Amino acid sequence: MSDMRIDVVTIFPEYLEPLNVSLVGKARARGQLDVHLHDLRSWTTDIHRTVDDTPYGGGPGMVMKPEPWGAALDAVLAAGPEGEVPTLVVPTPSGRSFTQELAQDLASRSWLAFAPARYEGIDRRVIEEAATRMPVVEASIGDYVLAGGEVAVLVMVEAIARLLPGVLGNAESHRDDSFAPGAMADLLEGPVYTKPAEWRGREVPEILLSGHHGKIAQWRREQAFARTLANRPDLVARWQREAFTKKEREALSVLGLAWDEAAGRFRSAVEPVEE
Amino acid sequence: MSDMRIDVVTIFPEYLEPLNVSLVGKARARGQLDVHLHDLRSWTTDIHRTVDDTPYGGGPGMVMKPEPWGAALDAVLAAGPEGEVPTLVVPTPSGRSFTQELAQDLASRSWLAFAPARYEGIDRRVIEEAATRMPVVEASIGDYVLAGGEVAVLVMVEAIARLLPGVLGNAESHRDDSFAPGAMADLLEGPVYTKPAEWRGREVPEILLSGHHGKIAQWRREQAFARTLANRPDLVARWQREAFTKKEREALSVLGLAWDEAAGRFRSAVEPVEE
Repeated sequence: MSDMRIDVVTIFPEYLEPLNVSLVGKARARGQLDVHLHDLRSWTTDIHRTVDDTPYGGGPGMVMKPEPWGAALDAVLAAGPEGEVPTLVVPTPSGRSFTQELAQDLASRSWLAFAPARYEGIDRRVIEEAATRMPVVEASIGDYVLAGGEVAVLVMVEAIARLLPGVLGNAESHRDDSFAPGAMADLLEGPVYTKPAEWRGREVPEILLSGHHGKIAQWRREQAFARTLANRPDLVARWQREAFTKKEREALSVLGLAWDEAAGRFRSAVEPVEE
Repeated sequence: MSDMRIDVVTIFPEYLEPLNVSLVGKARARGQLDVHLHDLRSWTTDIHRTVDDTPYGGGPGMVMKPEPWGAALDAVLAAGPEGEVPTLVVPTPSGRSFTQELAQDLASRSWLAFAPARYEGIDRRVIEEAATRMPVVEASIGDYVLAGGEVAVLVMVEAIARLLPGVLGNAESHRDDSFAPGAMADLLEGPVYTKPAEWRGREVPEILLSGHHGKIAQWRREQAFARTLANRPDLVARWQREAFTKKEREALSVLGLAWDEAAGRFRSAVEPVEE
């Protein structure tokens, strides 16, 4: 039996082709993932196979009709293991944030069903009715607007699948990942280098050739501090004083960051104090 | 001439198949988007077509070698319009956040080149050397870990392409999008409904059948307030008092939110005051 069953209901099954490639494709080939794609239009009953209609209350765009979605979810439920229900994952910009923590939660479940929408979204009653029958997670992969939920399904399945036992090969690793719980929480990874030692006149930082494992680890943490400060000040605001050694706090002060006890966060020395 | 040229260098060109589907596929078919996929391994010189090697300084995982990437970027630059350079977009969890604002910025450019990495990332010198020749944007689509940057390219291209003039059809719209600048900034969209008025014993909210456009607009704003408070308190923290009418602030107070002048943000009445 596979480690996880995944059902996806969509009007663009061909968009999910990447699930045959690379890490997810290999997990399917090994039988770790059991993926079923369904064309939503199979559950339409009119000659035009209509899945959308105009919104009640007016406004631009179209809304996905409840009947095909209701029938599709009935069929997915009936096709799965007897007595079990999937967790329904609905990608939507109006959902909670899809984070590494949510990916880990979903990776622990044995059956996920995805309902990617097009147009202005799915009639709300579909989600409410589904929630009476199975757990429902509405989640957003980021603060930008897509043309549909299919690419969000690709993102979520990839993030979830790589966390399943035995899926990651030796070339990959999640020990030092950005956003992994532990030492790298809320820290972006710093730069990486491989051979040759000189390329187009540019040399690898000397410390990485030194063989001093302790110093290398410290250099990498400091590079991660600098990268996070430059690209994601929102993550710096989450750092807690206790997560850093005295030496590391000295490195942070070189970056202009000092712990502000009143504010409960690290603050830039040049940042104006809020009035 | 197309509105935008896009080059993608990857070891998994087949992962980019969805660029032939739906909105992006149609924009390509109409000649609005000119997409060129390149296999990174074309620029390897050994019999194994090696693209990765062990990291300097030790540690798990592999790093993408500088030589194939350098040669690939040389070739992309040489293949484009005379005298022009692309903006190089590098999807990486260590980058700045990919937001709707960044999508809009990138949608205004005529040429984008994407460099999705696998493994632990690309040798840093490739990015530094590229930055001497063209604008470079390192961006992350969200706080989760993927198996590679290809799916992030699909996300970014879809978010960017739908902003190009004439790409969105009538069934889609970006006036009321979550995250669109204007009235919906930092607000999630509320629920949507279409026919039939009753489905599986569930009725469409009466207000939407009333024909009172003003009341419907107000109801939708209030639904958006409630959805944002429930799913994205981080967005609520960005709301400014002036963005809301007196009537809307009353609606917010029904949700338990009051403006806190000292904190400069709306605060829940039941939320403990920070010490």
